[in-house]
Amino acid sequence: MRIVIPIYEGFTALDAVGPYEVLSRLPGAEIVWTALEAGPIHSEPGVLKLVADVATRDVDRCDVLVVPGGPSSRRAGKAGLADWVRAIHLTTQWTTSVCTGADILGMAGVLDGLSATTHWSATARLADYGATYSEERVVVQGKVATAAGVSAGIDLGLQLASLIAGDDVAKAIQLGIEYDPQPPFDSGSVAKAEPATVDRLRAVIAARSG
Amino acid sequence: MRIVIPIYEGFTALDAVGPYEVLSRLPGAEIVWTALEAGPIHSEPGVLKLVADVATRDVDRCDVLVVPGGPSSRRAGKAGLADWVRAIHLTTQWTTSVCTGADILGMAGVLDGLSATTHWSATARLADYGATYSEERVVVQGKVATAAGVSAGIDLGLQLASLIAGDDVAKAIQLGIEYDPQPPFDSGSVAKAEPATVDRLRAVIAARSG
Repeated sequence: MRIVIPIYEGFTALDAVGPYEVLSRLPGAEIVWTALEAGPIHSEPGVLKLVADVATRDVDRCDVLVVPGGPSSRRAGKAGLADWVRAIHLTTQWTTSVCTGADILGMAGVLDGLSATTHWSATARLADYGATYSEERVVVQGKVATAAGVSAGIDLGLQLASLIAGDDVAKAIQLGIEYDPQPPFDSGSVAKAEPATVDRLRAVIAARSG
Repeated sequence: MRIVIPIYEGFTALDAVGPYEVLSRLPGAEIVWTALEAGPIHSEPGVLKLVADVATRDVDRCDVLVVPGGPSSRRAGKAGLADWVRAIHLTTQWTTSVCTGADILGMAGVLDGLSATTHWSATARLADYGATYSEERVVVQGKVATAAGVSAGIDLGLQLASLIAGDDVAKAIQLGIEYDPQPPFDSGSVAKAEPATVDRLRAVIAARSG
């Protein structure tokens, strides 16, 4: 089971590491971290670097593709990642995204005609790719699965683990990462957060989106 | 606000990246990734590498210390990390751990006489450090906070964000990372998981613990 995670300058680290932490625990998982050029890749806001071991041009097949998001997702898509995703998608059992990784799937044509999700601040863009926004946290459509913002990648990972290896394996992984979430506030979605919180975040996101 | 995250060969990536993703969004946050020797550091099970920019010997003060866990936490503690934590703890506003990062705090003497938590599979070791196990997901004792396994670091991060910058900031960060968790199963703690799942995991963990 070859699981490929493409990263790029300005990706969001948890988008990638959440599903990685789940999927790397699948029996027989082989994880490949890739980028347009191999080497250390800066996540937003620029401090943390994860290492991409292989250049995307050297990755020509993949069982599970997990595309993380980040403020620079569209820039990365234009720089060549969307073209690579379009090609690799033909080889996958599962093509997935977390957060605005959906932009890259969309630019690759993968979301055309499908329901999908992305970070709450970016849902309007889904229509540009021929997709229809769904309010679910994880949206599965055929072999394409999209997750909402950042931390939703953990939920995506567990759903995929269940679909790939069965409920017993997924439950064991959930216990392994002690995923019994207890957020101190109930402010994790636009529907639940206070309007002032939403406005505050929209301004921050508009300022740093690339 | 200088937030220091020490990593080591065999740490668990999500232990570190969960709280990082929260705390890096605090206004004025400066994050420092450190290790006994600077450079790329392999997380378990050996594929994903995060870059430590600075050697611990060059880090002599810190406002918030976040020590991640991993199967090799005790080995890392013995190799020098516990001595460094003992010294840096004197400079912190908050000294924290995720998962078996608690072993390293314990070896440094930080947990002596306190209530604390760690990964569910490692709770018995807390007594070795003079600590008393608490069933809470995040345990705050004075300036020391410990979190349960792996994904609990996100909850720790949000509690710290609230204590450091107030509820409004913490709520905005929660919305930013869209942390509205919806695990597909209710198998995230020993109390909730099926006994067979717990037995299965105990065997896996015993096999790889170092």
